[in-house]
Amino acid sequence: MSEDYRSMWENLGLDLVAHDALLEVLGNGYQDIYLAQKERPEGMGYFDFVMSEIHGLRVKELMDGKAAGRKVIGSYCVFVPEEIVRAADATLVGLCAGADFAVEGVERLLPRNTCALIKSAFGFNLGKVCPYIESADMIVGENTCDGKKKSYETLNELVPNLYVMDLPQVKSPEGRALLKAEFYRFKVAVEKLTGVAIDADGLKKGIEIVNNKRKAIYRLSSLRKTDPVPISGLDALLANQVFFYDDPVRFTDSVNKICDELEARIKREEGVMPKGTPRILISGCPMAVPNWKLPWIIETSGAVIVGEESCVGERGTRNLTDDSAKTVEELMEAIIDRYFKVDCAIFTPNPDRLEHIVDMVETYKADGVIQYGLQFCQPYLMESIPVEEALRAKDIPTLRIETDYSQEDVGQLKTRVEAFVELIK
Amino acid sequence: MSEDYRSMWENLGLDLVAHDALLEVLGNGYQDIYLAQKERPEGMGYFDFVMSEIHGLRVKELMDGKAAGRKVIGSYCVFVPEEIVRAADATLVGLCAGADFAVEGVERLLPRNTCALIKSAFGFNLGKVCPYIESADMIVGENTCDGKKKSYETLNELVPNLYVMDLPQVKSPEGRALLKAEFYRFKVAVEKLTGVAIDADGLKKGIEIVNNKRKAIYRLSSLRKTDPVPISGLDALLANQVFFYDDPVRFTDSVNKICDELEARIKREEGVMPKGTPRILISGCPMAVPNWKLPWIIETSGAVIVGEESCVGERGTRNLTDDSAKTVEELMEAIIDRYFKVDCAIFTPNPDRLEHIVDMVETYKADGVIQYGLQFCQPYLMESIPVEEALRAKDIPTLRIETDYSQEDVGQLKTRVEAFVELIK
Repeated sequence: MSEDYRSMWENLGLDLVAHDALLEVLGNGYQDIYLAQKERPEGMGYFDFVMSEIHGLRVKELMDGKAAGRKVIGSYCVFVPEEIVRAADATLVGLCAGADFAVEGVERLLPRNTCALIKSAFGFNLGKVCPYIESADMIVGENTCDGKKKSYETLNELVPNLYVMDLPQVKSPEGRALLKAEFYRFKVAVEKLTGVAIDADGLKKGIEIVNNKRKAIYRLSSLRKTDPVPISGLDALLANQVFFYDDPVRFTDSVNKICDELEARIKREEGVMPKGTPRILISGCPMAVPNWKLPWIIETSGAVIVGEESCVGERGTRNLTDDSAKTVEELMEAIIDRYFKVDCAIFTPNPDRLEHIVDMVETYKADGVIQYGLQFCQPYLMESIPVEEALRAKDIPTLRIETDYSQEDVGQLKTRVEAFVELIK
Repeated sequence: MSEDYRSMWENLGLDLVAHDALLEVLGNGYQDIYLAQKERPEGMGYFDFVMSEIHGLRVKELMDGKAAGRKVIGSYCVFVPEEIVRAADATLVGLCAGADFAVEGVERLLPRNTCALIKSAFGFNLGKVCPYIESADMIVGENTCDGKKKSYETLNELVPNLYVMDLPQVKSPEGRALLKAEFYRFKVAVEKLTGVAIDADGLKKGIEIVNNKRKAIYRLSSLRKTDPVPISGLDALLANQVFFYDDPVRFTDSVNKICDELEARIKREEGVMPKGTPRILISGCPMAVPNWKLPWIIETSGAVIVGEESCVGERGTRNLTDDSAKTVEELMEAIIDRYFKVDCAIFTPNPDRLEHIVDMVETYKADGVIQYGLQFCQPYLMESIPVEEALRAKDIPTLRIETDYSQEDVGQLKTRVEAFVELIK
């Protein structure tokens, strides 16, 4: 990395020694997991570059944007409406974190029995190793699960710019009214932060940008229906992960380029793995960079992942926002409608998710579903039992995995996954 | 127990063998923990009787009431407004459970990492050992924590009469609007169940009955400010537990009688333990019958408990409902106002609770606070860290305990509690 980045990181207040160590681990992990794959689409070179520059060039872009007056808003969740952020010409970046860091310090602030995603977000913050957190003008927390909502009370003591968005738990009229009130309150907060009065044109443009990114990723997903599969689950997951960081227009173009390449592959009946490879749908908790443990285990165990029912996957991207309206009020309604459809396990009841998982199995011709639960993530772990029942009722093989970000259980998980793959062959 | 009860239990569908085993364990535990105490107020004889008849006489009363048309509504939480239930001449009973039961069956339905309170409620249900669940005409679940809200989706498959009440997470105008909508929806459901049109007179009567019970328990609490303390924490906890089961008018009278006796004790400077005994405030998760483990450990370790900052304690009982209004609408507003004040850890932020804990330390002249957290109860475990900080900032000694319903950690807990008591002496 160039010296320019080092001074940028220093100016952002990063702990350079710890950050170097993190980048080294990240780089080695990427080498071992991503670059070691065979038959990757050439277009993935773009994502390899993005990942090699994830704390470099992209952060520099954000800083250049900030110098030109463009605000950066950080988010931990797919419920934060990017359309509203884009309407104010600000940038939304994901702050979720997929690796353990500063664990000792984190466990002074949060109970040990807190999910790895929340602990990691705190660790990246405490350890001063995340340039996105440090460059954010506003950090948005959201009252999804108990773990996140209560942790934001503590995060609020650590960062000067936390904004907490409340969310409903039930898809009732009052639940929608709450989401509406909160999205309007967020709009006002974004306007205040950016100095931009959000108008219908801005919202329409924001919706267009975000919809295009969703359409591109949806196009990529659709190409995974074929056998052989033209792209690995690891690479598709990476695209879904970069969705949260990258410039959205460039991201859209890059994903569409990969799709062109994959279509050509499909015509040639070329795949990333042989035809007939057992096909897995992953379902459950989000996987933030660099949490590639379970997909790597699956795809080195003789199976291929054909879909992600996840916030970092179809749950986060599958619904477009209706852009047909003309007024701010109507466009806001369309945005609220779109986000109110998200079938996160925080909702009770949450029948849409069960239906969606079964639909995805059919759409992507999956041979089995591996449910991924982060340890101590109560909403998804609890919902995993009815999901399992719904799948069994359709004779769809399924395996429940509960894990965290440590590497200690890799051997044990690999044994279980291999046995499952053997079963569905 | 008489044969009448056996046929009643059989008619209720209880598993008599398992139920006998439960009653035996309960009876032995009560003997060892409660009846082994010294210098107990005579008035506690009433509660000894209530406990010896907890599945007998009280259930028979409920059944007699049902035969006369009085409906029984079961609840798992202090957010269910008893005033509305009483206004329809129905009876509210607590269904929370404080002992492990049918664990193997429960862990097929719920993740192992679910809190003991929820697992126990399921275990009592699956094991067919709770006459309250079986006699309830309506069971009310409420969307408090993730664990409970998601478990109700499964409970709904097990019982024919589950009613789920949504609750807010934030004390915002939208949060209050949600509570209001839900309390009105509940009122309609109770009216439908009972066939009673709830009017202002009914609500006023309901408020009076429930307020009187709260005033009596508040009077009992107030008498624990003195040194020596005239009643043990175990006995005071029992009164708070029976609060959820007993006939409210009889309960009120019985508690007031104990208070008369305690006032006479105080005049004579008689205590349940010697003057100068270290005084402990317990704070945190609810303790349902027969979960007496931690109080028993504390009070056999040279300390006395002087207050319970708990749902089964002051959090559940401390605010009265304003009864001055005249119309149904105004009375409903008063009820909503009262419950919106409950400082449960599900709310974010929840500063009232921190203040209340510090207030209770001062009011009851506690020497230290033992925070009681049920394992996997994220809201209280997460809030325990800021509570600890708030107490340390005031130089109030505090100990955080995380446990479940098993007896395996009794020795270890006793060592920790004894060391804490030694520290605050």
